[in-house]
Amino acid sequence: MESKKFLLQEKDIPTAWYNVMAEMKNKPKPLLNPKTKEPMKSEDLYPLFSKAASHQELNATDAWIEIPEEVRDMYKIWRPTPLVRAYGLEKMLDTPAHIYFKNESVSPVGSHKLNSAIPQAYYCKQEGVTNITTETGAGQWGAALSMAAKHFGLELAVYMVKVSYHQKPYRRSIMQTYGAQVIASPSMSTKAGRKIITDTPNYQGSLGTAISEAVELAMSTPNCKYALGSVMNHVALHQTVIGLEAEKQMEMAGEYPDVVIGCFGGGSNFAGISFPFMRHNFTGERNTRFVAAEPASCPKLTRGVMQYDFGDEAGYTPMIPMYTLGHNFSPANIHAGGLRYHGAGSIVSQLKNDGYLEAVDIQQLETFKAATMFAQAEGLIPAPESSHAIAAAIREAEQAKLEGKSKVILFNLSGHGLIDMAAYDQYIMGDLANYDVPQSEIDKNISQLEKLL
Amino acid sequence: MESKKFLLQEKDIPTAWYNVMAEMKNKPKPLLNPKTKEPMKSEDLYPLFSKAASHQELNATDAWIEIPEEVRDMYKIWRPTPLVRAYGLEKMLDTPAHIYFKNESVSPVGSHKLNSAIPQAYYCKQEGVTNITTETGAGQWGAALSMAAKHFGLELAVYMVKVSYHQKPYRRSIMQTYGAQVIASPSMSTKAGRKIITDTPNYQGSLGTAISEAVELAMSTPNCKYALGSVMNHVALHQTVIGLEAEKQMEMAGEYPDVVIGCFGGGSNFAGISFPFMRHNFTGERNTRFVAAEPASCPKLTRGVMQYDFGDEAGYTPMIPMYTLGHNFSPANIHAGGLRYHGAGSIVSQLKNDGYLEAVDIQQLETFKAATMFAQAEGLIPAPESSHAIAAAIREAEQAKLEGKSKVILFNLSGHGLIDMAAYDQYIMGDLANYDVPQSEIDKNISQLEKLL
Repeated sequence: MESKKFLLQEKDIPTAWYNVMAEMKNKPKPLLNPKTKEPMKSEDLYPLFSKAASHQELNATDAWIEIPEEVRDMYKIWRPTPLVRAYGLEKMLDTPAHIYFKNESVSPVGSHKLNSAIPQAYYCKQEGVTNITTETGAGQWGAALSMAAKHFGLELAVYMVKVSYHQKPYRRSIMQTYGAQVIASPSMSTKAGRKIITDTPNYQGSLGTAISEAVELAMSTPNCKYALGSVMNHVALHQTVIGLEAEKQMEMAGEYPDVVIGCFGGGSNFAGISFPFMRHNFTGERNTRFVAAEPASCPKLTRGVMQYDFGDEAGYTPMIPMYTLGHNFSPANIHAGGLRYHGAGSIVSQLKNDGYLEAVDIQQLETFKAATMFAQAEGLIPAPESSHAIAAAIREAEQAKLEGKSKVILFNLSGHGLIDMAAYDQYIMGDLANYDVPQSEIDKNISQLEKLL
Repeated sequence: MESKKFLLQEKDIPTAWYNVMAEMKNKPKPLLNPKTKEPMKSEDLYPLFSKAASHQELNATDAWIEIPEEVRDMYKIWRPTPLVRAYGLEKMLDTPAHIYFKNESVSPVGSHKLNSAIPQAYYCKQEGVTNITTETGAGQWGAALSMAAKHFGLELAVYMVKVSYHQKPYRRSIMQTYGAQVIASPSMSTKAGRKIITDTPNYQGSLGTAISEAVELAMSTPNCKYALGSVMNHVALHQTVIGLEAEKQMEMAGEYPDVVIGCFGGGSNFAGISFPFMRHNFTGERNTRFVAAEPASCPKLTRGVMQYDFGDEAGYTPMIPMYTLGHNFSPANIHAGGLRYHGAGSIVSQLKNDGYLEAVDIQQLETFKAATMFAQAEGLIPAPESSHAIAAAIREAEQAKLEGKSKVILFNLSGHGLIDMAAYDQYIMGDLANYDVPQSEIDKNISQLEKLL
């Protein structure tokens, strides 16, 4: 067999992140102050994020942002990650397509989230912050930030979406083992949490609600900042190490992707695998397709609207120009907890608007079928989130077979599913369902958005 | 920071396993037929194992056994594994010692067990076998063999120790996701299982009992072989890829270990990390110490006797010359399920007898304390089994600090603990206990052994 893995050396870990904003023809519209509706400057974000992250958030001029040495040192714990040719899956599908995946699941916490957790914790520490707060869906981001916070000596409180807190107790324990405090959201510890518990006593939570709680705690705690695991521009920036490495590795493999695929929640791993390849589309040098794979139960890119909206349930965050289902959208309790978010980051939203990427929506059962095929073919059990990318890759590979032509497919395996085995168990037992979102529900949420501006 | 990881390339995956038996001064005594008590030849093992494994089991002449190309190709999925300098742990311990670990947790199933699962499944497939059976403790071996069996198209039935079946449902689901059949042991599906359920209705199982069940099913099923994840010489052989890689990597680091540590159940990961280094002790070129870290609740090396005993509860297996607590020893339900085994493999037992290695026994709470320190210092959550090696490494590092002298410590991180978070949860909650084994219990078991020969 030819080589399955394309491995880089430590020296090949990127020394700078790629800031796609600098090269976009149409820049994303500005964030707006949630109260005044005025465009925000970096300084306006200081109460929320570290200063460094605030600057990165609005930096639309520098295409390359240097990665601090301390961050790069931490990246060395598991980076560079392997690029893998999925021979087993190709054979199982009997497809002429060549399938590659970037294996971000090899990080100590099992996902790509550490790529941004480390710089966010680092910048806070540098700026003298002592406490940070965050939210987490499936727990991937929370686990990553717990590890990074412990490393840099920060205290961390994590609001974990209630359904995941119960579905995925192991991830809660992972965060606690790293020394973080974990609270099920909605909780009684914040105004935002109390309000939603009062209004909807059995509400199982959403990322939007958990963000509200984490932001509220950060704003009301001395020397405390908030850290977000997706959506924001600075998070997308940090994740570009994925695609930058993958670009070198595809070169080692002697191929270039015709299509690049990432699963899609707020956009962090999608941005990470895509943007470094997309810059060659900007120059006209390449014509790669980019596919965001989102859950059919939370279809912001395929069925939402491009509009200013809050990043959270309670309306604490800046208003973000995004594809959204409305910040009050309540997604079904699918196991891909990391994708249960109402909106897409502003960069990805602008790029979608400008035709640089496509989106597909995929039902839960199709993702678990794809995940099981992948596990049996490649030996790796994928996270339910990442399984959306696998399902989309399989669709592409099957299409290639139908058309009888070769095609190079690259997807990001954003995380492993070893903490999600209860979900696999339900799938094996036939207990998992698909979820449809009635158009009326989307329309209702979106009609409320119009009043915001 | 200097480099944390020492990485090899695919071409550096060993092309041959190291067969320590060929270079031992005193060879292990022969296996005995459980009925006739006569020394066994390779052919006598054919009913149980593949022919290739049977030959390897008794091969005391060839120091190097070629790794088949198909096995090496599968190894490429995750090998070579990193060697890591544990700067974080050194700093936390404020020790002059240099601590290295070989990270076998990066395998798709999360442990070193895949190193032997792949060749065992491969040889069965080559020889036309269609079905295999096995036992598993914590589920690490079962998960590994499930993946390997699926790859080579074999049907697999796994007897999983009942306490782990309930403590670690995620590992059961992993095996099922790979397509294996999993049965809690003791079960009603075998004579051995029925007998022990009748005698001790609430018995939560042991590796010894699960082996009996798996062997019985293999012997009574057409075209079926049995595969064992530890204890046997051929398993130790396959695991030497760990130490062979580590040897090259220590060279890259410019150091040589003063002490090599592995946790100890039946001996597979300990053999894997140790034997390649130990060969330089045989020649007198080096004087490295080797430390087997076993649980205080299952202290075969520190408190057992060197004696012929069965590998299983019911007495189906060959009689093995081993350090043993007696095949009816019933270990406490510690979370390190993979170490709950009454005996040590015959090679390790002989080497212990000849003074080539030391053993230490460690209580459960010390292992979880060490595991949590390691997680916080290095970012990786270790398996409860591997945490025994970490605890022993910490003892060595603290000793170095006391003596104020440098020392190079190498231990094997045999697996990660992401599937064992329920155990960490109990530790955090203060619900875990230590277990002492009364000498009278050991004496009773051992006195029954005398009648066997």
